[in-house]
Amino acid sequence: MAREEIPKQAKRMFKGQIFDVFQWEQKMYDGSYKTFELLKRPNTVQVLAVVKDKILLLEQEQPEKGVYLSLPDGRVEGNEDELTAAQRELLEETGFESKSWIEWQRFQPMVKVVFDVVIYIAVDCLKVAEQNLDEGEKIKWKLVSLDELLALTDDREVFKQQELAMLFMDMRLHTDKKEAFRKLLWPDA
Amino acid sequence: MAREEIPKQAKRMFKGQIFDVFQWEQKMYDGSYKTFELLKRPNTVQVLAVVKDKILLLEQEQPEKGVYLSLPDGRVEGNEDELTAAQRELLEETGFESKSWIEWQRFQPMVKVVFDVVIYIAVDCLKVAEQNLDEGEKIKWKLVSLDELLALTDDREVFKQQELAMLFMDMRLHTDKKEAFRKLLWPDA
Repeated sequence: MAREEIPKQAKRMFKGQIFDVFQWEQKMYDGSYKTFELLKRPNTVQVLAVVKDKILLLEQEQPEKGVYLSLPDGRVEGNEDELTAAQRELLEETGFESKSWIEWQRFQPMVKVVFDVVIYIAVDCLKVAEQNLDEGEKIKWKLVSLDELLALTDDREVFKQQELAMLFMDMRLHTDKKEAFRKLLWPDA
Repeated sequence: MAREEIPKQAKRMFKGQIFDVFQWEQKMYDGSYKTFELLKRPNTVQVLAVVKDKILLLEQEQPEKGVYLSLPDGRVEGNEDELTAAQRELLEETGFESKSWIEWQRFQPMVKVVFDVVIYIAVDCLKVAEQNLDEGEKIKWKLVSLDELLALTDDREVFKQQELAMLFMDMRLHTDKKEAFRKLLWPDA
């Protein structure tokens, strides 16, 4: 399926904190025109961070959102590239870093909202600093096994990263995909 | 997890064709304030329409989006309620109707966008009319078995209704859930 893109003739109608709104006149199959609308927001990054034989999982609490589990994640800020954003978020949220990063997946998850979710794998992570959280963040980290991670998809009220949940369920359905994923996380095992 | 809601003190900053943008000042844990932003858009409905021992599947083509498979779906329009929207979309897109509807699932699928996806089951559907498509729609319908429907989750480039894909994968992982679903689709079988 074609990716959604903001067409060149679109006008920015509103510039928000996160979302910009674009509109344009779209020619329909019968020759008439209709006002179309798309949003644009910064891409987000998510990190599968490997620490020895485990994976880093966050327990986060946010105003109005309650407590939930997630992989380290965040928005790309300003002009930084996606890998830099992933490295920054992992370091801020957990104090870990890695010298070996793979861009594993890239999705356009929302209908009518142009943005990518980019999922990185960071192997052999080491603790190099303390957490450095924004004023709105309450985050604890813990280490889980691959099987514990994949089992999170049974509770989507608590684990809401939907793209990851889809990938994890797919691995639970297809053992060959799970084993290929395991080799990405632990290339030397 | 708590549902995202537009807080009472939020102001509507932009009214779009589909999306409205709301902003407000949010007090943070350290007592400072930060501008928060949420979008609101109309709810959408999706229909699992049962025809004898099969389920209705659409092959759709849209400008800029290519060809894809989906269940009948659409946006709630104006002041109509969700069930009315589901019945209207099924009739317009396929010409089928049902006297027996169940609200099966309700989700808030997007982060920072306040809207629900509501999934209905319509049992014992009958063909009562021709398709009645909007000028922008090219839609063919066909009938598939339950196993063919669940197998669609293996090709997410073609089957993009993510909430449904999550539910179908969950059923493939948990046979008891699949059998409970089968009883909803064919209560008299």
